Amino acid sequence: MNAQTAKGERTRAAILDEALRLVSKDGLDGLTIGTLAEATGMSKSGLFAHFGSREELLLAVLAHGQAQFSEVVFQPAIAKPRGLPRLRAMFVNWLDWTQSADLPGGCPMIGGAAEFDDKPGAVRDTLASGQRNWVETLKRAARQAIEEGQLSKDADPEQIAFEMFGIALVVHHHRRLLGYRKARERGLAALDSLFKHHAAS
Amino acid sequence: MNAQTAKGERTRAAILDEALRLVSKDGLDGLTIGTLAEATGMSKSGLFAHFGSREELLLAVLAHGQAQFSEVVFQPAIAKPRGLPRLRAMFVNWLDWTQSADLPGGCPMIGGAAEFDDKPGAVRDTLASGQRNWVETLKRAARQAIEEGQLSKDADPEQIAFEMFGIALVVHHHRRLLGYRKARERGLAALDSLFKHHAAS
Repeated sequence: MNAQTAKGERTRAAILDEALRLVSKDGLDGLTIGTLAEATGMSKSGLFAHFGSREELLLAVLAHGQAQFSEVVFQPAIAKPRGLPRLRAMFVNWLDWTQSADLPGGCPMIGGAAEFDDKPGAVRDTLASGQRNWVETLKRAARQAIEEGQLSKDADPEQIAFEMFGIALVVHHHRRLLGYRKARERGLAALDSLFKHHAAS
Repeated sequence: MNAQTAKGERTRAAILDEALRLVSKDGLDGLTIGTLAEATGMSKSGLFAHFGSREELLLAVLAHGQAQFSEVVFQPAIAKPRGLPRLRAMFVNWLDWTQSADLPGGCPMIGGAAEFDDKPGAVRDTLASGQRNWVETLKRAARQAIEEGQLSKDADPEQIAFEMFGIALVVHHHRRLLGYRKARERGLAALDSLFKHHAAS
């Protein structure tokens, strides 16, 4: 990469960081070329040159969010031993990811899910495929915990991934809307119950 | 109530039914005096006469949604025997409530939570207090299941209500965004695990 391309990449990444913070706070509906111009101090025409259209901007910000999620949630977890330690790390990093990624308004993908579940198109498809991938990642880690003899052979990885997703959603919901301070602690307790329920005897 | 007042009430209820369907599909952000005028065929000035302002309209539609939730979720459940049968009925009616209330775009309150969690004001307060009330209702029913000797004396009603909320959220999320057909069945299985985990020995 030459110096000019590298600079272009850095600029683009900095814009997308700011865009992701906007989405975290105001939702995907709150992100337009106009709101982003205001937040970054860039001109609308400059932003159009980077992204082409509002839909392209939304897709770019989701790809950026998914890459950050992978970096602060998935990558550190995959470094843990196969099985329960890895599955637990995925969950804990997930609960903490909006803090790790400096997104004070909550998870842009959870917010986006509620906004776009009835709006067919590329944005909805990107959200859905990202979340399906994450479900598959959780299932794979749960299956490995069964193979490692940590969870029962009767345990169902799909049910475990489903229930983990629910716990993460309620932690996010209670924390964001209800200001519930015990959300994280309750979420970890729920995970412990789930693992205990499916523990190998 | 005289005939004219009754007619006014019916008109208002019919408008709010339509408004709630709009919110179910497009979120609270998608509901304005303008979109509602288009959906109902009424004039904007007629709608302003009913609701006064957009914020009043949002508050009225949330109150309408909460009343419908009470009617199709809470009221039928409270007719069940105290304890687990009532707690289970609350949960099952909750999973089915958007169908019972003819809201094909999903739960307006879950959607609203993601939209308004960072927007202080009366709309957010109404959403939060409605959801806090529901959490308290679930806790009370769980506490009664302990008193009836159906759940263990060591069970924590707040943890049970928290986990039930998570299961309802993931059923909604997986059904709406991922088109996951097994969502309801998986949700009921998760509830069974939760009750089993906390069963009186």
